[in-house]
Amino acid sequence: MIIVLAESANEADIRHVVDRIEESGRSAHLSRGVERTIIGVIGPDDPAMQDMFETLRGVESVHRVTKPYHLVSREFHPSGTIVDCGRGVSVGGTELAVMAGPCSIEDERHIVETAIAVKAAGANILRGGAFKPRTSPYAFRGHGERALEFLANAGRESGMPVITEVMSVRDIDAVARSADIIQIGARNMQNFILLDEVGKTHKPVMLKRALSGTIEEWLLAAEYIVAQGNPNVILCERGIRTFETAYRNTFDINAIPLAKSLSHLPVIADPSHGTGKWKLVQPVAMASIAAGADGLMIEVHPNPDHALSDGAQSLTFESFERMLGSVSAIATAVERRVPLHASASTG
Amino acid sequence: MIIVLAESANEADIRHVVDRIEESGRSAHLSRGVERTIIGVIGPDDPAMQDMFETLRGVESVHRVTKPYHLVSREFHPSGTIVDCGRGVSVGGTELAVMAGPCSIEDERHIVETAIAVKAAGANILRGGAFKPRTSPYAFRGHGERALEFLANAGRESGMPVITEVMSVRDIDAVARSADIIQIGARNMQNFILLDEVGKTHKPVMLKRALSGTIEEWLLAAEYIVAQGNPNVILCERGIRTFETAYRNTFDINAIPLAKSLSHLPVIADPSHGTGKWKLVQPVAMASIAAGADGLMIEVHPNPDHALSDGAQSLTFESFERMLGSVSAIATAVERRVPLHASASTG
Amino acid sequence: MIIVLAESANEADIRHVVDRIEESGRSAHLSRGVERTIIGVIGPDDPAMQDMFETLRGVESVHRVTKPYHLVSREFHPSGTIVDCGRGVSVGGTELAVMAGPCSIEDERHIVETAIAVKAAGANILRGGAFKPRTSPYAFRGHGERALEFLANAGRESGMPVITEVMSVRDIDAVARSADIIQIGARNMQNFILLDEVGKTHKPVMLKRALSGTIEEWLLAAEYIVAQGNPNVILCERGIRTFETAYRNTFDINAIPLAKSLSHLPVIADPSHGTGKWKLVQPVAMASIAAGADGLMIEVHPNPDHALSDGAQSLTFESFERMLGSVSAIATAVERRVPLHASASTG
Amino acid sequence: MIIVLAESANEADIRHVVDRIEESGRSAHLSRGVERTIIGVIGPDDPAMQDMFETLRGVESVHRVTKPYHLVSREFHPSGTIVDCGRGVSVGGTELAVMAGPCSIEDERHIVETAIAVKAAGANILRGGAFKPRTSPYAFRGHGERALEFLANAGRESGMPVITEVMSVRDIDAVARSADIIQIGARNMQNFILLDEVGKTHKPVMLKRALSGTIEEWLLAAEYIVAQGNPNVILCERGIRTFETAYRNTFDINAIPLAKSLSHLPVIADPSHGTGKWKLVQPVAMASIAAGADGLMIEVHPNPDHALSDGAQSLTFESFERMLGSVSAIATAVERRVPLHASASTG
Repeated sequence: MIIVLAESANEADIRHVVDRIEESGRSAHLSRGVERTIIGVIGPDDPAMQDMFETLRGVESVHRVTKPYHLVSREFHPSGTIVDCGRGVSVGGTELAVMAGPCSIEDERHIVETAIAVKAAGANILRGGAFKPRTSPYAFRGHGERALEFLANAGRESGMPVITEVMSVRDIDAVARSADIIQIGARNMQNFILLDEVGKTHKPVMLKRALSGTIEEWLLAAEYIVAQGNPNVILCERGIRTFETAYRNTFDINAIPLAKSLSHLPVIADPSHGTGKWKLVQPVAMASIAAGADGLMIEVHPNPDHALSDGAQSLTFESFERMLGSVSAIATAVERRVPLHASASTG
Repeated sequence: MIIVLAESANEADIRHVVDRIEESGRSAHLSRGVERTIIGVIGPDDPAMQDMFETLRGVESVHRVTKPYHLVSREFHPSGTIVDCGRGVSVGGTELAVMAGPCSIEDERHIVETAIAVKAAGANILRGGAFKPRTSPYAFRGHGERALEFLANAGRESGMPVITEVMSVRDIDAVARSADIIQIGARNMQNFILLDEVGKTHKPVMLKRALSGTIEEWLLAAEYIVAQGNPNVILCERGIRTFETAYRNTFDINAIPLAKSLSHLPVIADPSHGTGKWKLVQPVAMASIAAGADGLMIEVHPNPDHALSDGAQSLTFESFERMLGSVSAIATAVERRVPLHASASTG
Repeated sequence: MIIVLAESANEADIRHVVDRIEESGRSAHLSRGVERTIIGVIGPDDPAMQDMFETLRGVESVHRVTKPYHLVSREFHPSGTIVDCGRGVSVGGTELAVMAGPCSIEDERHIVETAIAVKAAGANILRGGAFKPRTSPYAFRGHGERALEFLANAGRESGMPVITEVMSVRDIDAVARSADIIQIGARNMQNFILLDEVGKTHKPVMLKRALSGTIEEWLLAAEYIVAQGNPNVILCERGIRTFETAYRNTFDINAIPLAKSLSHLPVIADPSHGTGKWKLVQPVAMASIAAGADGLMIEVHPNPDHALSDGAQSLTFESFERMLGSVSAIATAVERRVPLHASASTG
Repeated sequence: MIIVLAESANEADIRHVVDRIEESGRSAHLSRGVERTIIGVIGPDDPAMQDMFETLRGVESVHRVTKPYHLVSREFHPSGTIVDCGRGVSVGGTELAVMAGPCSIEDERHIVETAIAVKAAGANILRGGAFKPRTSPYAFRGHGERALEFLANAGRESGMPVITEVMSVRDIDAVARSADIIQIGARNMQNFILLDEVGKTHKPVMLKRALSGTIEEWLLAAEYIVAQGNPNVILCERGIRTFETAYRNTFDINAIPLAKSLSHLPVIADPSHGTGKWKLVQPVAMASIAAGADGLMIEVHPNPDHALSDGAQSLTFESFERMLGSVSAIATAVERRVPLHASASTG
């Protein structure tokens, strides 16, 4: 941390700042310039300390110098992490992760049918919602534990690992029993108790970026999970909230290469939520892979105009298969590949 | 809901839309204009239905006509709600609520001392954090259940009701036992399970607006609580996240009169978080009361430059008392008043 | 400027940074810490230099220490500037500036009638648009030079100075001849040529903040004008663009006390644009004065539902008069006052 | 336009709305539902009319149904526009436009050297700034008319058309004489006088999206130019302003496929400004082409760490050439190609 003193700061002010630094167990390094005095703080950078120093008399500004996360940083672990998701599928390697399935699991037949279709088109991970965060208390909130069973069956029948969202600490056990990957949704990115608790499981966790989460906050949320002993974290960019109303969210393509340079964790793109419009899903999926994403999460529904939620952003089986064909060409250009079945079906 | 068809829509498209409306148990009212056909949907407006209709062939746009919340709307309950918080203090009446205290409860002496000082200056509700949401897993996260006891004691000693944040369903019982008002923090505004569960208690709940929560989402979050049978909800505007970096958050003054016109619930302003800078707390507190807020939540710390969290936005006892003097003059101008002690101490 | 080197920076990197600092005519002050080397740059802080240093090998981050504006800063001119607008009206003193009138000047009778009515209600400056920035090329764009004449006549008849917007360098002369105060609209806050040219006149200039203008950019835009020799600048907060769609803009109340603490220039609030909804104009006007604004700019139209532009945010004569009554009470609470006529009409 | 009346609207309110519709030369189509009356307005949709209707007593909401732009819409001109930029280069066809060069033109040798290098690497249009919009009045603002000459010479010597920004109506003639394509910068997207005037030339115009410009406002700004008789408009996405501070701007990848579906105009991506960080330029350039962009605008400087402006986002000749190699692979995957020289140099 670097503390810049105001021109008006006097010796007593400087002394008080140095005392506070030393009380905190850090040491101070004074540098008196022509116009201003600058104090370097030797010791760990803590955001709360920054706040505190800013209130001291005579302090003009406080600059953090080191990143506030450690375990998830690229410096700590220079090579990229590959997360093993079971059934022979891993995230972060040359083969892209393609997670596909419906927003909500509606019944067993529905999810099994979808699983078989998306696998045939080239998916390697099955997604499906059992517990759904809904803006309105009157909207359909998912079939809960019953849907978890349907999902597990569909995973077994199709031979794919499955991912589903957990919204509450009390459901972690049930979700961890049925799912291969636990998803933390955007609205829970800073539900810190939930982060702690999924960190205590050893299941792969996919952490979505919050609607207005900065890259730093997102990586700190991942740090919460890893700090509990679970290194199997996958990041997922799903669009941020901006002034633009032409789409539901603004997919932040910059976040993909930046997150991958700051952190060793794999990064997945969710263009379904990142656009909210099915017509934009394919081009933004292609863009994400071109920018370095390690995979995609895509909403697919046999019949989007009957979907109980998020139909507007769901692809049909046909448009999903067409999309993977185009994604495959981009993957080749960046020396990645979509899962083997896809190559078969698009070749 | 109103569905506008594209110029290119044909009879089969129109038929399909009407069928889907009728399948959903609603009825359709066709209006064929010169350029376009418009279909009015008679029946409840459900955001998920809007999404679904937007995916149908031939549909250009779908417009919701009715508000998605009911119980919290001003139409449902035209007069303003007054929430009884115990110990003779209520929120929403002529007397303003003045919630004051430290961001984190550090020890028993600290919170009792603060309680007595803020009450003397004119506060009528004591705030203090036991469970703290922190961006970094390495920051101080509050003293938890032990701090709840300290807070309850400080409330008893000072004769004020107390408010503290709950972050997880598993802590609701403990918080509800110690606190008179349960606070839902900004990061949990859409933690829907938590909303359900505090809705099942009958304690007053103060619901902070999320960093990027729209007014509609905020009122829907309140609807979650009320829909469970708990009508004692207080809204709290605490600043939103924008492009501006000169302050930690941008206090949304428009939200105060708008929320009060759309809803019957009382609205509190939190200028400490809404600015993140102690120098801006007083003017924004004054502005909030001028705009119609029913009270204030203010961070006060005996010694902000030693605070374990959020020192940068905390007032000292002296600056808090000075602030309430200025707020009192504004309150008079809008025919409200700060609590009696304040009048005494500032008169 | 402070340059923080990466842990990986070697001696050659450090040497190169120091060389570049010295080439730029500044001097370097090295401080080698345990983990990192920090270089203080002695000499003027230029944002472009910051960019350049960030590209150098081994540089981790660059922090500006001094503010990039000088002439408009509170340090440069500790007491508040009072701008004389003619006809006995000034902006920045104890008496508030109340600028009122229609968005667009429709015809001579219309503007004269409005001038007389708003003056009677308590306004002291007449506003009216001759050149209108319009999002669509097909919308009404103002009556141009003819409207300037109508405005000047209305100012003379009512005895008030007048303010109107200039959109192009070629219209500065005509506007400066007719108007007492030249307005730079939000969309032109960074039309730097226009800023230069109004800086060469000696007319008072009111500079609106851009839709996504930071406080720093706003003050730098003011610096453009003052740097050309024109110190008569008035700032105007008119709402910023955020994710919230419930109002046209989000009025940034924090900006008022912050701009007044950073700069000596007076600050006006425009709650008509800052909300876009006439029902919110009065509470946000009251809030602005409570937060320290030096005056208001309000859209008033004899018949808002016939207005050629921005009817949705215009007050009628009656609601304007009512608003000034309420504003007057707030003004008293902060030891300011609305213009004398207002006191008469509201007393 | 569709006007939804409040439940509380009475017959007189409805009559008044219908009268106002008819006064405006449009006709009204009433539809009385069970709960609400809805009025369809037959006639042109004007945003100002929407505002006006919203102020009428008894009106709950007003919904625009048709898009406010015509000439630039895909419906008006279903096939994509190809803009001829001279010297055999066009924008919008199978061959991508690759605009490259320095942010500012520093001297003649500098721009000629850059022109030759970027052409060798695969560029087909030379960019260079003569008039520079700068946030601070004290920053380098470009060499103006002298730089225009250097740029024209560099274009002739390298055989490439040239593009440069115009900031003011008074410089249009000079810029139009020297440049093949006139650029309107982001800060001038809503400088409507400038849009009108470049619309009166017949030069190709590249229109950058404003920092907080919506897609609709961007297309309306293009409509201004086309409405004056100049159909040669190229759109350029250059990043928007959001809450994220990890990059200078947030490149809006969604905007590319959406703008291309709404409009027939070609769309260029500027990842240099869209990220502000040279390390992100290549992945975001690749993503843009994958998403359907018709070309790129890239800042290239022989020596970025000596650049007079925007060094932080400039590529060196080497990194530019490497980038085009990677972009070429993506182009092939989407059945486009980088200009011939590039194929040569990367093959």
